[in-house]
Amino acid sequence: MARVHNFYAGPAALPLEALEAAQKELLDFAGSGVSVTETSHRSKEYEKVHRETMALIKELMGLGEDYQVLLLQGGASLQFAMAPMNLLGPGQSADYILTGSWSQKAYKEAKIVGTAKVAATTEENGIFRRIPRQNELKLDPQAAYCHLTSNNTIFGTQWRTFPQTGGVPLVADMSSDILSRPFDAQPFGLIYAGAQKNLGPAGLTVAIIRQDVLEKCRAGLPTMLSYKTHAEHDSLYNTPPCLAVYLCHLTLLWVKKNGGLAGMERENAAKAKLIYGAIDGSGGYYRNNIPTEDRSWMNVVFRLPSEQLEEKFVKEGKAAGMVGLKGHRSVGGIRVSMYNANRLKDVQDVVAFMKDFQAKNG
Amino acid sequence: MARVHNFYAGPAALPLEALEAAQKELLDFAGSGVSVTETSHRSKEYEKVHRETMALIKELMGLGEDYQVLLLQGGASLQFAMAPMNLLGPGQSADYILTGSWSQKAYKEAKIVGTAKVAATTEENGIFRRIPRQNELKLDPQAAYCHLTSNNTIFGTQWRTFPQTGGVPLVADMSSDILSRPFDAQPFGLIYAGAQKNLGPAGLTVAIIRQDVLEKCRAGLPTMLSYKTHAEHDSLYNTPPCLAVYLCHLTLLWVKKNGGLAGMERENAAKAKLIYGAIDGSGGYYRNNIPTEDRSWMNVVFRLPSEQLEEKFVKEGKAAGMVGLKGHRSVGGIRVSMYNANRLKDVQDVVAFMKDFQAKNG
Repeated sequence: MARVHNFYAGPAALPLEALEAAQKELLDFAGSGVSVTETSHRSKEYEKVHRETMALIKELMGLGEDYQVLLLQGGASLQFAMAPMNLLGPGQSADYILTGSWSQKAYKEAKIVGTAKVAATTEENGIFRRIPRQNELKLDPQAAYCHLTSNNTIFGTQWRTFPQTGGVPLVADMSSDILSRPFDAQPFGLIYAGAQKNLGPAGLTVAIIRQDVLEKCRAGLPTMLSYKTHAEHDSLYNTPPCLAVYLCHLTLLWVKKNGGLAGMERENAAKAKLIYGAIDGSGGYYRNNIPTEDRSWMNVVFRLPSEQLEEKFVKEGKAAGMVGLKGHRSVGGIRVSMYNANRLKDVQDVVAFMKDFQAKNG
Repeated sequence: MARVHNFYAGPAALPLEALEAAQKELLDFAGSGVSVTETSHRSKEYEKVHRETMALIKELMGLGEDYQVLLLQGGASLQFAMAPMNLLGPGQSADYILTGSWSQKAYKEAKIVGTAKVAATTEENGIFRRIPRQNELKLDPQAAYCHLTSNNTIFGTQWRTFPQTGGVPLVADMSSDILSRPFDAQPFGLIYAGAQKNLGPAGLTVAIIRQDVLEKCRAGLPTMLSYKTHAEHDSLYNTPPCLAVYLCHLTLLWVKKNGGLAGMERENAAKAKLIYGAIDGSGGYYRNNIPTEDRSWMNVVFRLPSEQLEEKFVKEGKAAGMVGLKGHRSVGGIRVSMYNANRLKDVQDVVAFMKDFQAKNG
């Protein structure tokens, strides 16, 4: 079958160039005569990829010497527990800003591990349709950290400007918008991301930790659950998910070649302008009731006049070569996920399909 | 470069057929128009692979309805902590049998998490050159479980017959010899294995848990660290490492096609007979001082008359198309790792090389 437009929310589209490069050398990696997934993680061929991956993440994000990149496993879901296990000192509490299902899950894990407070929530009847404003945040100046989810895949919202915390380190789950735009990392003590949207395949988790936060991490944890273990061993304490790291490396090279984070932001802004313009210009046929400034550039959610039409939209979209259009099972509707590897052309095609569908079913 | 003989200890050789199948459909998985690493873990295409992987492991190992297969992340190293976190009830203790570096690490993690005792160790001056006999084990009849490492990659030993524990569930790290031979799983309450030897790529961890042990697992753990979470969600609580699961699936199909575990055992026995025969028949040029009945069929370690000759052996072996011959950095010497995907022909070639090397350097 021909390649289709891939709008899955994650695992999601990867750059075709990265996949083609991987395909070409899957049986013979870097002239080693074995696959990248068959070589020792202590081999010079793999170690080069491993170290370049960490260096490229720092380079692309403009991170200084005070940040260390860790290559981990277990997804953001494991980070929901690891972050408080490491960062919550005895007697300390952490602030959590709730903007959707993922931040709720992160908050739940923090309470299993220690003490956590809700600094803000935008939930109304189980729905989160916006990002809180600075003056809504009840921040604890003594908090060990303040946690947020930078982009909400299910509800289709995204932080445009990160909150001011008066020096309390921000901790962010950036699984779904890391590398999508430049931002000032300095207020962040810890950033973590499952790779399966903008970084590469599922099975790799990237954590970026600031040196002062790393140094304060708790001792006495199980070895694999301690950030210090991975930091001290350059993420080679145990066998890393080599194949996923390798595909992440190819993805990072593609990001760099395509203008780095500034290039990604330009393209992502153009995509967002196009599709939200189509929604807002549909005379109410397509509805997205999220405040303009909180709309996600990664996951565009909208409703049609009826669930029947939504089903038809998903079905006909698939027939027209567009997969992954169904909204998350917890909220329904339509979701167009458009990460870095989805280019403007993909979004132009879905917008053309939307216009055509409305003309036929309006 | 042409494919070479791959004797790495892990990540290690995978069946060429599995890699070729993956290569062929890397851009278009099961006619879906997207790569297996780009499709949602909730898609019907991925779910089929996921469920078949769990079913094939049960089928190949002959496991009944009282066992559940979990697809996890973090490697055996994370299981060293997860096993005691889940299985050690309040006030309980676990027995650990120490036969090498990996069982020492498992024991260390258990002590971080709870109470653990050494039921036996074969360490002498930092070296473990054998497996303990039944009458050497000081087993606690009240232990929550008894832990062992079924094959020791660094020291080249392997359990031929598992110990009798009088009903205390065995817990085994089988990372390096799972699927290499049939065995009676019934005494085992938990088996875990990093995939990167006999199961597939690094980044996937398989755990096999007996229902009665699962039911007694502790509550109140961080969600991702609880076996119950993964069991209750068929290992789809969070995004699994889909690409690694997919390659595991292809590897399992290859095992099945090649006679299942009985077929693997026949080939592994023939390989072991050949190479240990060559060592023992070398007139002391190649030395392996492990008791015959404790010798590993997966990792064959031996010494040459000098370290200089060992270096030369590794170097010339590589030039002759054999990679991964260097012993673990902690013990030195030579190590020929020969997992399922290394066939008799590979071992015939390394044995021919050994004979040639001895003739020239003896």
